[in-house]
Amino acid sequence: MVKIAVDLMGGDNAPEEIEKGVLQAVEEDGSLEVLLFGLKDAYSGDHPRVEFIEVTEKIESEDDPVRSVRRKKDSSLVRACRAVKDGEADACISAGNTGALMSAGLFVVGRIKGVERPAIATLLPTTGKSKEGMMLLDMGANADNKPQHLYQFAVMADLYMRENEGRSNPTIGLVNNGSEANKGSELTKETFKLLDESGLNFIGNFETRDILSGKVDIAVTDGFTGNVILKTLEGTAMALMGEVKQAFLKNTKNKLAALVLRKDVQSIRNLLDYRQYGGAPLLGLEGNVLKAHGSSDRVAIVSAIRQAKRMAESDAITKIKERVGEA
Amino acid sequence: MVKIAVDLMGGDNAPEEIEKGVLQAVEEDGSLEVLLFGLKDAYSGDHPRVEFIEVTEKIESEDDPVRSVRRKKDSSLVRACRAVKDGEADACISAGNTGALMSAGLFVVGRIKGVERPAIATLLPTTGKSKEGMMLLDMGANADNKPQHLYQFAVMADLYMRENEGRSNPTIGLVNNGSEANKGSELTKETFKLLDESGLNFIGNFETRDILSGKVDIAVTDGFTGNVILKTLEGTAMALMGEVKQAFLKNTKNKLAALVLRKDVQSIRNLLDYRQYGGAPLLGLEGNVLKAHGSSDRVAIVSAIRQAKRMAESDAITKIKERVGEA
Repeated sequence: MVKIAVDLMGGDNAPEEIEKGVLQAVEEDGSLEVLLFGLKDAYSGDHPRVEFIEVTEKIESEDDPVRSVRRKKDSSLVRACRAVKDGEADACISAGNTGALMSAGLFVVGRIKGVERPAIATLLPTTGKSKEGMMLLDMGANADNKPQHLYQFAVMADLYMRENEGRSNPTIGLVNNGSEANKGSELTKETFKLLDESGLNFIGNFETRDILSGKVDIAVTDGFTGNVILKTLEGTAMALMGEVKQAFLKNTKNKLAALVLRKDVQSIRNLLDYRQYGGAPLLGLEGNVLKAHGSSDRVAIVSAIRQAKRMAESDAITKIKERVGEA
Repeated sequence: MVKIAVDLMGGDNAPEEIEKGVLQAVEEDGSLEVLLFGLKDAYSGDHPRVEFIEVTEKIESEDDPVRSVRRKKDSSLVRACRAVKDGEADACISAGNTGALMSAGLFVVGRIKGVERPAIATLLPTTGKSKEGMMLLDMGANADNKPQHLYQFAVMADLYMRENEGRSNPTIGLVNNGSEANKGSELTKETFKLLDESGLNFIGNFETRDILSGKVDIAVTDGFTGNVILKTLEGTAMALMGEVKQAFLKNTKNKLAALVLRKDVQSIRNLLDYRQYGGAPLLGLEGNVLKAHGSSDRVAIVSAIRQAKRMAESDAITKIKERVGEA
């Protein structure tokens, strides 16, 4: 049995879609138990492997991350993290306030000793042959990073991809503004040296022109840049697919032609669908914490729960401790 | 008459496509003269308003920017910039080495006194109602920037958009990792304050989820981030349109349906076509210098020459001098 703590109150579609996702996940996987933290009457389900735990508070998406975690100790988000800390759950999930989840990860679950800055890592889709996806980090846990942080991000992502995603010798690229080794900002120039001497499978600078190409398994960058990359990618994809849709609906002739193509174009949308890619693991913590996308629906929650279970069953945290920890 | 100096040797399709573009531009515009700098025998045309000037050197795309400009004084790129400096031309264009063009801008044309860091500004397409495009800067002239640099970028872009693109009171956004005023890195937090007190039409933080939406006229960022944004946008668009193309060619049924939609989908491609958007002005220099896209073909060169002419006819440099210069 693997036990996952779930924040029922976090995300745009909470609590309804979270509940649906939880019930579907336990239905599909007989070795799964869920501790579900929510406000009174938020849960209407009934399942032998779902234990509902009533809380009295909720962290809102606009709450200050650090303050809300410190003050709302009985919130569903903090309690789900507390369950991991206390060994009552093997992993936890929230689709709520990302900053608050990271704060709870730091203050409640705890940082692995030796990890200077935990990171939020996202799995991005890739097109072309592989369609296996790649990992991009940090996605915004940090606004300003030092070379040593980025080096640790690479080590943690390497272990995560090996242990959780079955990549045997993941390639690592450093997000930069050019391909040559001497290119970049002070941060990337210094980081390049660290990665080059690290023994990791570092293949050099990575230009985000290749972001969806699957050219690397892991792209490392500071939290500011990672956040901007993700939003640029989302914005561009949204705008383009919107234009394609408009073209399809332009007139009757187009509409009929689009009917034929609908399924195949839908599969392009699916490729970019965050729901297929589960959540974003918080790396560098003493427990398994997973951020589900803010607009998660049932499908996304099922996918995130599966991912959290894989995390719980893997040795990633132990290996990170051995590799970067002081233990 | 407006006289534009053109680097015949710069860019992936030089010299053939550059020559074709120059000849088409002078053909279409009777008030245009071109000084065309190229290696011996590179020019095969013959036009009364195109003066070919033979040079002995060429800057390659992989040349070190600063060193090549210092050493290759008789290169087509440096000579085109020299023509602006010496008042022989009203503006110059190169599709060659971007770093070298910026170096020549600095060392040959000269920086406006008071401008701490000149910037490369790009016009990006926008979807939706307006489709007027927006300006993003800096695109990579600088790897590390200070708040004062970003403030000056905003001032220069504001004047450029007013004088050259006819935007009456351009809105300015600061690229950031969140919409709230207190969000961001040390750099963006400090810059936010400067812009907020600037008297410019500053509308706050800009998240690149809206990059193609036309939500702002100008988005300001450091050169590292700007470069990454542009490449992410290009990579995402390329990958998605590639997937759409594959779907269209998947089988006979799809191919037939795609025939009907071809024209409308082509217009989406055109929307993102750098050729329609001309070149990237270098802002903060004592003369008009325009970087054309490295893969410029004839169409792109015609468009860049038109843009250079608008720059030459505008008062942007004078106004930048008044506003940020010490003159």
